[in-house]
Amino acid sequence: MGRAKTFDEKSALQKAMRLFWQQGYANTSLKQLLAEMNMLNGSFYHCFKDKKTVFLKSLECYNEEITYQRQQALASHDNFSEGIRALFDEVFITLSDKSEPNGCLIVNSMATDVLAEDELKQYMYKDFEDFIAFITQRIEHSINKNFTRNAIPAKQLALILVTYIQGLFRISYTNLEVAQLKCQTETLLTSLKL
Amino acid sequence: MGRAKTFDEKSALQKAMRLFWQQGYANTSLKQLLAEMNMLNGSFYHCFKDKKTVFLKSLECYNEEITYQRQQALASHDNFSEGIRALFDEVFITLSDKSEPNGCLIVNSMATDVLAEDELKQYMYKDFEDFIAFITQRIEHSINKNFTRNAIPAKQLALILVTYIQGLFRISYTNLEVAQLKCQTETLLTSLKL
Repeated sequence: MGRAKTFDEKSALQKAMRLFWQQGYANTSLKQLLAEMNMLNGSFYHCFKDKKTVFLKSLECYNEEITYQRQQALASHDNFSEGIRALFDEVFITLSDKSEPNGCLIVNSMATDVLAEDELKQYMYKDFEDFIAFITQRIEHSINKNFTRNAIPAKQLALILVTYIQGLFRISYTNLEVAQLKCQTETLLTSLKL
Repeated sequence: MGRAKTFDEKSALQKAMRLFWQQGYANTSLKQLLAEMNMLNGSFYHCFKDKKTVFLKSLECYNEEITYQRQQALASHDNFSEGIRALFDEVFITLSDKSEPNGCLIVNSMATDVLAEDELKQYMYKDFEDFIAFITQRIEHSINKNFTRNAIPAKQLALILVTYIQGLFRISYTNLEVAQLKCQTETLLTSLKL
């Protein structure tokens, strides 16, 4: 019979994820991780091996917890114009929630320190491609259902939106109000005939 | 008569600026700065005081060297549609230049580590506001000269563009080709009736 686990792996990972989200990868030390996750060196090594591995798991955890909700919001509408607004609503909920860090862990991680590690870079690139493919697919679905009649090719439209979303997470660090971000986003969507 | 300066302050600062641009603020140590700037502790302290001060000067240096060129490109056209394309051309030149770091020092610095320092935060916020004010002004100028007839209010249009530019610098870290970024940017500008 093994010893009872002295900690909850999932909840420890969520703490690590939020620490990385707050501080970034290079900027977070193993010591800080151990303190935040309430773990000793030995059990951390046993469970997560190293900082890189716990970061990779944190990215997965962020996608399961945060990105999934956004994608579900989009996918729950056949009409892409409605779906993309539902996705933005989810983004604005996170940006308004003062108990969560600003920005987006994935967007923040598209930076030199993370991309210097080959395994992390591969995850980031694949994650980015998957997100673009997902948005493109939802646009094509909406075109097929006759909801969307847009002169812009689906992938091009997806890339413009994804670029804008990345920018939105960056400027969420400024003192612009969420109401302003909502307003300009609506203007953009209308201009894109969505 | 004072001793001859053993180093060129401006060139040392440019090296510091590129190191911060490459690595980020928190992620750059004083030791790395001294090595990169080829300075000893004493002369560094004498000239730049501390890491925060040299970072602040690096932001100024980036704006003088890089941002200024972009703003000049925009300001050299009365027609905003031409000016904003000239600005994007400057951005794409930096993104294509493999000898320069990716992204943008200012965009990269809109992050928790920098904003945690009050003096840096004030600089970043003011810099961001100035950039939006500058773009807004150029749109208004173009409206007054009858080049731009846009239903979107000038400041709203400026904010959409600035958000998109920030996103563009983020996705410059992915493996998307600059040709793709140019193409989607042209589509965005056309959609915004620019």
